[in-house]
Amino acid sequence: MYQESHTRKKQEPGLATQTTAERAATPTATGPTRVVIIGGGFGGVDAAKAFKGHDVQVTLIDKRNYNLFVPLLYQVASSQLSAEHIAEPLRHLFCHQKNVTIIFDEAVDIDEENKQVVLAANAPVSYDYLIIAAGARDSYFGNDQWAEYAWGLKSLEDAHRIQQRMLLNYELAEVTDDPEERKRLLTYVLVGGGPTGVEMAGAIAELSRFTLKKEYHNIDTGDTRIVLLEGLDRIFPAFDPKLSAAAQDALEKLGVEVRTKAMVTSVDATGVEINKEERIEAGLIIWAAGIQGASINQGVADVAELDRGKRIMVTPELNIPGHPEIFVVGDTAHIPGPEGRPLPGVAQVAQQGGRAAARNILLGIKGEAYQPFVYKDYGSMATIGRNRAVADVGGMKLTGYPAWAVWAFIHILRLVNFRNKVYVFWKWMWDYVGYNRSGRIITDYKHDAED
Amino acid sequence: MYQESHTRKKQEPGLATQTTAERAATPTATGPTRVVIIGGGFGGVDAAKAFKGHDVQVTLIDKRNYNLFVPLLYQVASSQLSAEHIAEPLRHLFCHQKNVTIIFDEAVDIDEENKQVVLAANAPVSYDYLIIAAGARDSYFGNDQWAEYAWGLKSLEDAHRIQQRMLLNYELAEVTDDPEERKRLLTYVLVGGGPTGVEMAGAIAELSRFTLKKEYHNIDTGDTRIVLLEGLDRIFPAFDPKLSAAAQDALEKLGVEVRTKAMVTSVDATGVEINKEERIEAGLIIWAAGIQGASINQGVADVAELDRGKRIMVTPELNIPGHPEIFVVGDTAHIPGPEGRPLPGVAQVAQQGGRAAARNILLGIKGEAYQPFVYKDYGSMATIGRNRAVADVGGMKLTGYPAWAVWAFIHILRLVNFRNKVYVFWKWMWDYVGYNRSGRIITDYKHDAED
Repeated sequence: MYQESHTRKKQEPGLATQTTAERAATPTATGPTRVVIIGGGFGGVDAAKAFKGHDVQVTLIDKRNYNLFVPLLYQVASSQLSAEHIAEPLRHLFCHQKNVTIIFDEAVDIDEENKQVVLAANAPVSYDYLIIAAGARDSYFGNDQWAEYAWGLKSLEDAHRIQQRMLLNYELAEVTDDPEERKRLLTYVLVGGGPTGVEMAGAIAELSRFTLKKEYHNIDTGDTRIVLLEGLDRIFPAFDPKLSAAAQDALEKLGVEVRTKAMVTSVDATGVEINKEERIEAGLIIWAAGIQGASINQGVADVAELDRGKRIMVTPELNIPGHPEIFVVGDTAHIPGPEGRPLPGVAQVAQQGGRAAARNILLGIKGEAYQPFVYKDYGSMATIGRNRAVADVGGMKLTGYPAWAVWAFIHILRLVNFRNKVYVFWKWMWDYVGYNRSGRIITDYKHDAED
Repeated sequence: MYQESHTRKKQEPGLATQTTAERAATPTATGPTRVVIIGGGFGGVDAAKAFKGHDVQVTLIDKRNYNLFVPLLYQVASSQLSAEHIAEPLRHLFCHQKNVTIIFDEAVDIDEENKQVVLAANAPVSYDYLIIAAGARDSYFGNDQWAEYAWGLKSLEDAHRIQQRMLLNYELAEVTDDPEERKRLLTYVLVGGGPTGVEMAGAIAELSRFTLKKEYHNIDTGDTRIVLLEGLDRIFPAFDPKLSAAAQDALEKLGVEVRTKAMVTSVDATGVEINKEERIEAGLIIWAAGIQGASINQGVADVAELDRGKRIMVTPELNIPGHPEIFVVGDTAHIPGPEGRPLPGVAQVAQQGGRAAARNILLGIKGEAYQPFVYKDYGSMATIGRNRAVADVGGMKLTGYPAWAVWAFIHILRLVNFRNKVYVFWKWMWDYVGYNRSGRIITDYKHDAED
């Protein structure tokens, strides 16, 4: 299917009525093929890198000016790392790859007919091939009004907001005379027992039990109540049950309440309701329960099928059926995987998918057939606190310190930039020795009697 | 004078009619003396530390929750260091000093009669002794409307705003079709030839000439025009003229336009006017031309004299004349110095003053006479770019690399926290080798067609 229409496109370049904009979009006889990539995350960056040295003009569009190492975002939210440690300017990443142009703008629509990406602030950008790698956003499963109170953790802004709220809660708890309010301020609820919820719960536990322990006179930060809610019957449902049990044990040793079969049925400014029968008053609610495809996916909804998570259904070759010139990779794509389930929304799938899409585009330019994407699963892992983790690597199921060592080693290797690698390594070692944290600073806060 | 009134206070504790609040402020027979410090900067922190081990209850009030290493603030504004590198949580600084209580709130007034500090959000705090160490803010010399366009560099929020503006200007210049607008976006005007203006000009020059040089396709960031304006006839007017000349030479080698005898006569959203005859269109205007005492100084304006810079006039013993229980230290104090001029607003004066005020309070508690503050000047220095500086240390006037080495060594020694010392040292070494920068990330930016 993709091959047929791909061939037709090549044979009938003047199929539609040409406007000036469209003529601009038609490749010139001598100019390089124009590849536009929406999104500078794992998928988009690896796709762009794969064109290095090829006669292709790549335009990388991102509303942010940096690539973000999302797996460590929870460490920024828990005051363990600074934003700069996990964010690398895209221009810096590509300063030596001359065929990549970076546009700092937001893609708001896709005009498949004229082969253009419509931007928020700048003129549309024409493509011969398009890669949509725009990532995912939080899904509240139809309860979007919860977003105001149950905060996601997908961006640096999210991490900053959560970090500031935690620090403020301790300051406000320190001075309040109301014991109920103090208890509420020191109760943190995390919704979702996947890696984000588990890793964040562990990080908050260590922050409150160790790092902040001696810094307040009127409160014991160790009293912080941390509740992790999972709707299914175990946390880490995607992992082996043994690892789920090990993770739960590690969390409970850190004083985290792990609640399974706990569905959130209501969220408001001061707490959550569970299974329509129990209420927890909370000073911070973190939402890590579900994601959906990026909003730009609506821009191709007229030519593509979206799944119920608003992800774009793609062929095994990663293009939109009937549109061999539009590829979709990473969290925003629904990629058929083993046993009919889509591949998981993890960095490895995005990176490998980005490279596969680039390979297929290079094949297409040569007039050759696309190849199906084969995902190579290197394993899953998550860390709980400063020296525990669970890992499923190459069939080996590791827990405790060995898993942590593997986790730390692999994450350091994967960090995109050498300087950051050294930094993060140093920070981790320092934290490991001293339970110390940087970055516990509150900015832009207005004191007033209402608080 | 201070001794007389100090004696009178001790002899006549019931002089004024006592209210409930005032009775609460009277020290109990058994309780420790209550010292309240407004401001957790250099002066306030060193004063609080000086009470370690003494039978004194110290309350440190700051509207921010961290101590800031202000001399390196320009490196945050120029994307060289992260905020966390130069900010240390106050609670962490004092976690082992049990007689210090920290209140995260803003002091809004001082009730000298009832000996209370009035706070924005919490109940008033009573004192036996008060140290005002609230620092300085920008002064626009009666043109407060310039503050909207000519941004000061006194806080992390200021540094963040400047850093974001610079990064955005490069992004907007990269995509604009208007050559005049591009030129304006890439013109930075710094008002004031003191250390802040000079160090910031040098840092912007290196950022634009080296760090960003290869990252943009449509603009040459090396074309960035950097104009440093000084109203007097040389930059660094407080330094030896030889050092002024060396600093100017170093700046000009980095491509900074140094303009002396250049008074700013008007500021608006797109530029500045100089000497009522010349206009410079600018994409960023940084104000480093003058400071004034903190706004809390108005709280003692009924009992103290303020100079025209709104700083509080103090005795040689650092207290307010007639009020031996109120000390003022640091940038917010007008401390008589040699030749009748006030001591300069530098960290050394604040730190030594804070310690001297604490010593005098301990003398007062014992009923002994205060001792005059003797400022020991260890010298002045400023850095220009990555390996040039000027320094006047112990009478030695150094320039170039030797001055830079001394500057770097002393600043590393002075940084408040060991971890930060290692960090900043590492960052500097890394920058020195690679002209690299971290933290060039733009956050919370909304793309729209208006920009």
